Amino acid sequence: MALTTRLTQRLGLAHPIVSAPMAFAAGGRLAAAVTAAGGLGLIGGGYGDKDWLTRELAAAGSARIGCGFITWSLAKQPELLHLVLARKPAAVFLSFGDPVPFVDSIKAAGAAVMCQVQTRRDAAHALDCGADIVVAQGAEAGGHGEKRATLTLVPEVADLIAARAPDTLLLAAGGIGDGRGLAAALMLGADGVLVGSRLWASTEANVSQAMHAAALAATGDDTVRSQVMDLARKLDWPPRFTARVLRNAYIERWHGREAELMAVADEEAAKYRAAWAAGDPVNSNTFVGEVAGLIRTIEPAATIVTHMVAEAEACLAHGARLTV
Amino acid sequence: MALTTRLTQRLGLAHPIVSAPMAFAAGGRLAAAVTAAGGLGLIGGGYGDKDWLTRELAAAGSARIGCGFITWSLAKQPELLHLVLARKPAAVFLSFGDPVPFVDSIKAAGAAVMCQVQTRRDAAHALDCGADIVVAQGAEAGGHGEKRATLTLVPEVADLIAARAPDTLLLAAGGIGDGRGLAAALMLGADGVLVGSRLWASTEANVSQAMHAAALAATGDDTVRSQVMDLARKLDWPPRFTARVLRNAYIERWHGREAELMAVADEEAAKYRAAWAAGDPVNSNTFVGEVAGLIRTIEPAATIVTHMVAEAEACLAHGARLTV
Repeated sequence: MALTTRLTQRLGLAHPIVSAPMAFAAGGRLAAAVTAAGGLGLIGGGYGDKDWLTRELAAAGSARIGCGFITWSLAKQPELLHLVLARKPAAVFLSFGDPVPFVDSIKAAGAAVMCQVQTRRDAAHALDCGADIVVAQGAEAGGHGEKRATLTLVPEVADLIAARAPDTLLLAAGGIGDGRGLAAALMLGADGVLVGSRLWASTEANVSQAMHAAALAATGDDTVRSQVMDLARKLDWPPRFTARVLRNAYIERWHGREAELMAVADEEAAKYRAAWAAGDPVNSNTFVGEVAGLIRTIEPAATIVTHMVAEAEACLAHGARLTV
Repeated sequence: MALTTRLTQRLGLAHPIVSAPMAFAAGGRLAAAVTAAGGLGLIGGGYGDKDWLTRELAAAGSARIGCGFITWSLAKQPELLHLVLARKPAAVFLSFGDPVPFVDSIKAAGAAVMCQVQTRRDAAHALDCGADIVVAQGAEAGGHGEKRATLTLVPEVADLIAARAPDTLLLAAGGIGDGRGLAAALMLGADGVLVGSRLWASTEANVSQAMHAAALAATGDDTVRSQVMDLARKLDWPPRFTARVLRNAYIERWHGREAELMAVADEEAAKYRAAWAAGDPVNSNTFVGEVAGLIRTIEPAATIVTHMVAEAEACLAHGARLTV
């Protein structure tokens, strides 16, 4: 069983699957498990907790992994990049900000520069920056993102890459939760996929049982993009980005009432952070994408990766038979 | 060259492509051209202008076509359905409302009942109604729609169909503008695709040159979902539905200022309707989806259909080679 693409050849992977560097959820254990399964695992550097990052890099052991950052947050403490580069990562993943200040040092360290983009415009900028891999993320993704859909963004970026920088690789991100999604992404011109939510729903992810249970009970209709979780946590997200989470009592209370929430943010932030630390899916938020409707089990990452590839292969074989 | 699916077999088509019944844009000429090219063409019954519908049904000549309705609008003048059924259409397409009042007469006339849905919930209702074909439409679509993405909605509805009504067919709609999108939809479990924007950008569509030019100049970043065009036209759209259009001066002026627009709706409605009748892409709206970024030419529908199928076949053949 193998799916060979430019991504697997370039990075020496068995499967064209990269795990999303989900803040909090994607620690060293998940990243190492994805790499061991034949993909490439990424640790979520998130908002830049140095102790957390040091611990999770250690937890990955000697596995060949990468690390992702929220770019606007990394810009506030660029020394975290050097912490990661010292470990000789396979790749560094940047999203939600200008990659320019970081590209040279990543390349100098021999790591692949992965730039996640949410628009064609930012994809063009990523190519100008010399990205080795562009990750085109659609709005169906869990967690932070923007408005475009994966289904149209990926082929549009593929055309841009073909015209301007054909050696650059392309990953599809957002809405890919099984082998059908992987096969579809390959049809759209991607060299592989970034998988977030489906690997968030793995035994190795740092996610509470209660949040996993909430996602298993949800359909894809039950998520929403919102800013309330960032206002509640007093995080400096640029307003163009929202986060997709499960609808819950917290969303019902505050979504559409952002000005009121900001007026009580000090009090709410403490409550929110406590609920979040407790893994409470009612008084904080469960960050998962529309593929929640395709997730029916919490399994080891290796099982998820293996099943995704086998299903994609079956889809591709079936597709070829439609043409006769 | 042929792609054989359950849709082509069931409806006797050469290609698994159905044209979207776009209000105003999809008249008899476009529908007949799509059918002649081997797909199934649908006339857009829209808001129910009887004279327009009579003329466009005639314009389709003897071509085997279908017709679509905005369901909440059809409920106000159900006699229009009988006008269509008298022509023995291949299919009747219902979207944006409860299909229950219309299903029996469509089936009695021997036409296929196509129910377009925007959520898993409405897909379940369509199956309860006995839909022959469910069309799962994502938010990337041009014109009216809702929030879910095609990439996750299609496989989720495919699973629902497999569990509850496996003989029901499934079309993917929204974001499918070329052969890559068609091949991706087949990977997701669709039996075919509904194509709107790409056929809107055809020589047979009732679309002004100026609006076509605006779409050709746009990227996929340049569209937005809004309600201002419905408020401006004083149309009774249920608030869950918005329409995707090109960003333009009209959107810049009113999007986010809906209450102000409603306060001057009488005056604005007259101006908007005049601009719309003139095909003015600045003072009314160009209804096109995110695939605007993939559209580079205005061509005959037959060229579009033929190229889409050939490209999908090439993608599927390429996909099979990735598995060796």
